[in-house]
Amino acid sequence: MYLTQLLHRQLQQQPDAVMTVNGDRARTVRESAQRIARLAGALQGLGVSRGEHIGILALNSDRYHEYLLAVPWADAVVAPVNIRWSPAEIIYSLKDASVKCLLVDDVFIPMIPALQQACPELATIIFCGDGPTPTGAHNYEELVTQGPAVEDARRGGDDVFGIFYTGGTTGTPKGVMLSHTNVMVSNLGMLASADTDDAGGVAVLTAPMFHMAAVGCWITYLMTDAKIIFAPGFDPVSVVTMIDKYKVTSIMLVPTMLQYVLEAATAMGTRLPSLKYLTYGASAMPNALLLKTLALIDGVKLLQAFGMTELSPVATLLTWQDHQDPEIMFSSGRAPINCEVKVVDLEDNEVPIGDVGEVVVKGSNVMVGYLNKPEATAEALRGGWMHTGDIGYMTERGYLFVVDRLKDMIITGGENVYSVEVENALASHPAVASVAVIAIPSGQWGEAVHAAVILAPGQSVTDEELRAYCGEQIARYKVPRTIEFRDAFPLSGAGKILKREIRKEYQELASDGTAR
Amino acid sequence: MYLTQLLHRQLQQQPDAVMTVNGDRARTVRESAQRIARLAGALQGLGVSRGEHIGILALNSDRYHEYLLAVPWADAVVAPVNIRWSPAEIIYSLKDASVKCLLVDDVFIPMIPALQQACPELATIIFCGDGPTPTGAHNYEELVTQGPAVEDARRGGDDVFGIFYTGGTTGTPKGVMLSHTNVMVSNLGMLASADTDDAGGVAVLTAPMFHMAAVGCWITYLMTDAKIIFAPGFDPVSVVTMIDKYKVTSIMLVPTMLQYVLEAATAMGTRLPSLKYLTYGASAMPNALLLKTLALIDGVKLLQAFGMTELSPVATLLTWQDHQDPEIMFSSGRAPINCEVKVVDLEDNEVPIGDVGEVVVKGSNVMVGYLNKPEATAEALRGGWMHTGDIGYMTERGYLFVVDRLKDMIITGGENVYSVEVENALASHPAVASVAVIAIPSGQWGEAVHAAVILAPGQSVTDEELRAYCGEQIARYKVPRTIEFRDAFPLSGAGKILKREIRKEYQELASDGTAR
Repeated sequence: MYLTQLLHRQLQQQPDAVMTVNGDRARTVRESAQRIARLAGALQGLGVSRGEHIGILALNSDRYHEYLLAVPWADAVVAPVNIRWSPAEIIYSLKDASVKCLLVDDVFIPMIPALQQACPELATIIFCGDGPTPTGAHNYEELVTQGPAVEDARRGGDDVFGIFYTGGTTGTPKGVMLSHTNVMVSNLGMLASADTDDAGGVAVLTAPMFHMAAVGCWITYLMTDAKIIFAPGFDPVSVVTMIDKYKVTSIMLVPTMLQYVLEAATAMGTRLPSLKYLTYGASAMPNALLLKTLALIDGVKLLQAFGMTELSPVATLLTWQDHQDPEIMFSSGRAPINCEVKVVDLEDNEVPIGDVGEVVVKGSNVMVGYLNKPEATAEALRGGWMHTGDIGYMTERGYLFVVDRLKDMIITGGENVYSVEVENALASHPAVASVAVIAIPSGQWGEAVHAAVILAPGQSVTDEELRAYCGEQIARYKVPRTIEFRDAFPLSGAGKILKREIRKEYQELASDGTAR
Repeated sequence: MYLTQLLHRQLQQQPDAVMTVNGDRARTVRESAQRIARLAGALQGLGVSRGEHIGILALNSDRYHEYLLAVPWADAVVAPVNIRWSPAEIIYSLKDASVKCLLVDDVFIPMIPALQQACPELATIIFCGDGPTPTGAHNYEELVTQGPAVEDARRGGDDVFGIFYTGGTTGTPKGVMLSHTNVMVSNLGMLASADTDDAGGVAVLTAPMFHMAAVGCWITYLMTDAKIIFAPGFDPVSVVTMIDKYKVTSIMLVPTMLQYVLEAATAMGTRLPSLKYLTYGASAMPNALLLKTLALIDGVKLLQAFGMTELSPVATLLTWQDHQDPEIMFSSGRAPINCEVKVVDLEDNEVPIGDVGEVVVKGSNVMVGYLNKPEATAEALRGGWMHTGDIGYMTERGYLFVVDRLKDMIITGGENVYSVEVENALASHPAVASVAVIAIPSGQWGEAVHAAVILAPGQSVTDEELRAYCGEQIARYKVPRTIEFRDAFPLSGAGKILKREIRKEYQELASDGTAR
């Protein structure tokens, strides 16, 4: 299988259908395919070689879509850059992937001199924005206009499709190598496993396209012949406006985004009647938000895709039918048809039903490996199974409940405390808008449970009141020993709270000898 | 991906559901999995080595199902034997695949001495029938009872799953090597592409399980968690009885079988109300039969899967929605999500829409190759595309109309005549039950159009009347120059008429110098 086959299929089956919408620009499948064939020809003309990594540092657009197809068409590999990263992290990833050719839009063009100074290999810049083309850069539209339409290389199978950087939340960035088979199987499996019927629908892509969660959705939209609306960034009011204007039928939102979209929709007096399917994932879904979503959007069918970049990206699915069952609607769902999922102990033995352990996955959606990191690859894929670093348990019908990230689990006085459980207890308090629970070093307990809390607008509560409230819901040893109030959390590209960053402050305190 | 993962998934998600029904025997997923793990252990105990080809010569049964899963579980390769073949052909395939271990049921056990005499390598016979175990054979149930339950080898990916023999209708038998990825992708793609919803349904498997069309259906039943009813052979009355008794929701029938099932259902006064999905394929569907099916089975959704063993087995799909459109309902449908399909000329250039050429396919469902036949493999897969040997044309919406087999096309007086077109003209005459049109050698025309006809019961017509009837519908040069009346046709394992056999008679006549 190869990603470009999805374009050939649409070209054969609906050449005159609108494929991409970007502001005022709408392009049919035929136009999109012609531009992609010419962009691929232009890339080859610029000296791009077989298997070379081509970067992109840009907001979502129809040109991002063309890039994702033109690069494999030219027999090269995509290497999208995380737009939320610091310049130092971006430089790390460009160097790690030996990127020589980078597409950049208006927003990120000011970074280029610094990037080129730090990455001597980075010789070719293609400006894919709408403003004036900076000196020394190639203009995207000129390349598309002047490039010769080349034959599709039909790069596919085990050949790498892309390098997707991950690890922002837990440690050093790692470039995840995903093959064409990986990304095709994961999304084919999702379509085959979930009973959805949105062929020829309308989708809006608002999650950032450097992230595999967004790329995965984009692939399913290509598979289902959808018209795709590209949103350059996430703005809840414009997302709501687009849904109503284009009669959007499918959307993927991470929980943080979903919360804002619901608030905006409520404020704007719309119940988003066109939405048939709402997919969520990429970070834990608060139970309250799930119930609120079902209450606020009439008749929407919810689909949870739990996974990670290394799984291209799906590990388990919670179907819309599953969302109707109160016993499982807060789970992460079950293994799709295309991969096997189990829960194992530290020796990789499967644990009994209901017991907690690490979630591992085997199947054709499991990554090829981490770029330039054979040891991390061997560690992650030991025994032929992807070790997700998530801890959870399985029910007797195969529903997975994820209780925490392995690295977020707190061991205090010899007891395991799952940060997610404590967060759920705190988040159910009406004054709490958002919460992150972490371990901080403790001389007495080894680790101590600590909560960082953002209050809801206009609300107030003391740490003692919150601790008392928690004590009514969870065991005493799980109640945070300390609570701090904040205005904001450091967030990852996918909208996950970066607990690592919060933890770091306390580790630095501890290494200063100032730990409590 | 690996086939056994479908068993692990059901074991995790519905261990106590009934998985197989075979006469009075019903087994849950858990029982089936335990038996498979022990059969795999027994096979390894008998000395079966990694990648060894294990044969089976048997009618459909729950044990056939266990064999198909236990063999990869034991890290070996299935090599089902065509039960319709002559002893000479069976011997050819056993020798070609170097089969040392063969499962045989009651029906075929009398053939064993002859097979063992011709195949000295064939040392191990496992009797999987219900009668007394012949001397020298292992008893299947004893192996399952006494075998140690071993860990699944999880053989998968590009490893070969099975050797499926084909070529019966067009020439020398060829062993098609299909990988786990091949068979998983083809069927995953079918589920993802067709909007079907039969999760947890009931399926009856009546097509012979040595054939990839049946194995493909069986895999989709495993993917959709169906209860599978095994029919040992095809008997229309018992198929109808089983459909009504078990409230069967899904069935696959080749057109020949479908015709008999409809007649039996009509005679038995049932409209098969439980049937939700009826899949057909493996040979051309007469238009009249398609209309009759829609008229006789209320609310059934038809799905056509057009393909061949080499495609694991699906090339194109005609969805149930497509069947509602009179302009495309007689086509073979469109490319599914998982492969690319095009029509090319003799130089492998894609032909314009509407032009006739050979159908070629590219994707992860394309076979690994023909066993021991590197030249035939290279020829079939030239340029990376599977050359199907079918000729057809594509519409502007990507619907494929297959007009003939390349080898069945007749060139008479310089004109191309597609045998299917002539057959459709003849089959529309009320006196005609079945027809096969072939080329016979002709001194005057190079080839001449010849029709072999089976009359409907109680009907009579002369060859002159039929030729006149044809002449009203198709061009004069397409009208058969000669017509013969027969009582029966030689049929392949999939129920296809073996034109090769009919043609052979005339070629022999020609080589005797007796051609007309």
